[in-house]
Amino acid sequence: MKPDWIAVDWGTSNAQFWAIGADGSVLGERKSDKGMGQLAPSEFEAVLLDIAGDWLSITSRVVTCGMVGSRQGWVEAPYQTTPCAVCPSKMVTAPTTRSGLIVHVIPGIRQTNPADVMRGEETQITGFLAQNPGWDGVICLPGTHTKWVHISANEIISFQTFMTGEMFALLAGQSVLRHSIARSGWDNDAFASAMSLTLSRPESLAARLFSLRATQLVHDTDTITLRASLSGLLIGAELAAAKPYWLGQNVALIGANAVSAPYIAGLATLGIQATRMDSTEMTLAGIKAAHALLEYID
Amino acid sequence: MKPDWIAVDWGTSNAQFWAIGADGSVLGERKSDKGMGQLAPSEFEAVLLDIAGDWLSITSRVVTCGMVGSRQGWVEAPYQTTPCAVCPSKMVTAPTTRSGLIVHVIPGIRQTNPADVMRGEETQITGFLAQNPGWDGVICLPGTHTKWVHISANEIISFQTFMTGEMFALLAGQSVLRHSIARSGWDNDAFASAMSLTLSRPESLAARLFSLRATQLVHDTDTITLRASLSGLLIGAELAAAKPYWLGQNVALIGANAVSAPYIAGLATLGIQATRMDSTEMTLAGIKAAHALLEYID
Repeated sequence: MKPDWIAVDWGTSNAQFWAIGADGSVLGERKSDKGMGQLAPSEFEAVLLDIAGDWLSITSRVVTCGMVGSRQGWVEAPYQTTPCAVCPSKMVTAPTTRSGLIVHVIPGIRQTNPADVMRGEETQITGFLAQNPGWDGVICLPGTHTKWVHISANEIISFQTFMTGEMFALLAGQSVLRHSIARSGWDNDAFASAMSLTLSRPESLAARLFSLRATQLVHDTDTITLRASLSGLLIGAELAAAKPYWLGQNVALIGANAVSAPYIAGLATLGIQATRMDSTEMTLAGIKAAHALLEYID
Repeated sequence: MKPDWIAVDWGTSNAQFWAIGADGSVLGERKSDKGMGQLAPSEFEAVLLDIAGDWLSITSRVVTCGMVGSRQGWVEAPYQTTPCAVCPSKMVTAPTTRSGLIVHVIPGIRQTNPADVMRGEETQITGFLAQNPGWDGVICLPGTHTKWVHISANEIISFQTFMTGEMFALLAGQSVLRHSIARSGWDNDAFASAMSLTLSRPESLAARLFSLRATQLVHDTDTITLRASLSGLLIGAELAAAKPYWLGQNVALIGANAVSAPYIAGLATLGIQATRMDSTEMTLAGIKAAHALLEYID
């Protein structure tokens, strides 16, 4: 096994490491729960050596993306500002103590007005565009903080972040609704009906949340139904607000299957057939594209 | 000191006890942090005796309101259903072991469609109407779960609950926004501007939440400003949804000063001068009114 370089997706909670061969193939893959959130800047190098020490006896070049480049990360990789090419024209390197080790950090992207930021998603988009050259349209990246990104001529024109995933987790897990929302399970009709409500009348989001709890108390409604209803209310409100993004556009989704499914269902009711790409695959493809550009710049 | 009866406001987190004289005056007042949330049904009586044992050596009649009457409380006091008189025509009594002790529990109120429930607020409204006989209009009770209640001819016609207070606490304290929201402080202009945004375009709530975080990262906006903005976004969305309640109506607020102030400011921009009453005073007045009705029924 001869890794040519190492790709790392280093997020807030987890990190994923790949050994990449000279032909771009994946020679090995490892994971760690030592995310940025629990590491001081000086601790990243030791984690890297701990996870990938054997690979680093053969190669010393690393390309990483994600929260590793935030102000609280290994080194701050200053944001690019929209409109900008998704693939960065330069990268910062992280401070290291081991001789010869070079760690390139892919920068995030920010937007001035309305203010917005991303770190990590730009790499997934880079991967998507590497696989779909010349693609124009809107990419939706569902997750804790769902992002809608307008792409034209290989540039990010604008983007908008929604806290829908985090709101769902807080409301279902920690609010008074937790007594009424099942931990898993789904009800297509309840989802569609709730989504349609907030999509057409976004102001009803505020009015309908407590109703989920009350519906269970008054009508003994099934908690799986209420889980799908909560998701529908939140995603309907997001789709209403994101209308300038999806209306009349090509839409691609980058995300895991479970988190993407409600978006695909919601967009389908709007007459939009969105294609889905896997987020981990796009991340790796994006780090590879950044690495290739790095070689070109070198 | 000769208490004639004992009034208790027994909520989820706290309880408040008053010794009431034969002339209705308050002879003593005590508090406990033994709320319903931490008590099994069989434990309420011991807490009552512990806090008010000396009073109970003179009187044995207690009237209580709040979550003490919920399914998880001392005894379930079945909801009245809207439309209904705010002051109950009958009350359940809680099971007791001490000879002669009689604990009356004021029932909550439920609405079938849209489903909604209240426990405790009905007593504050009873107190308000006891002090303002014949009053018609809308009462707003700001809090963790803000309620808007339409009153006509001494009846609750309909009501609607908003989770605005709980959403603020979750977003400001536990979401990614916690890094950007000051724990206290206020900015009138930021509040008014954010409120106006979601009031006129409720769909922007979903779009603007993450922007608070991004604005701080990109523009280094003051965290006190962002605290007021978050409050404004949430209350603007609530006022948009509650329009059928406040439009063209007399509006009275029952609540503590801090939680009522943003609502008073918001309603003022809509041309509505809302009067505020203190929630603890209204609760006590409501328990007294229920006690008086009890004597009448007896």
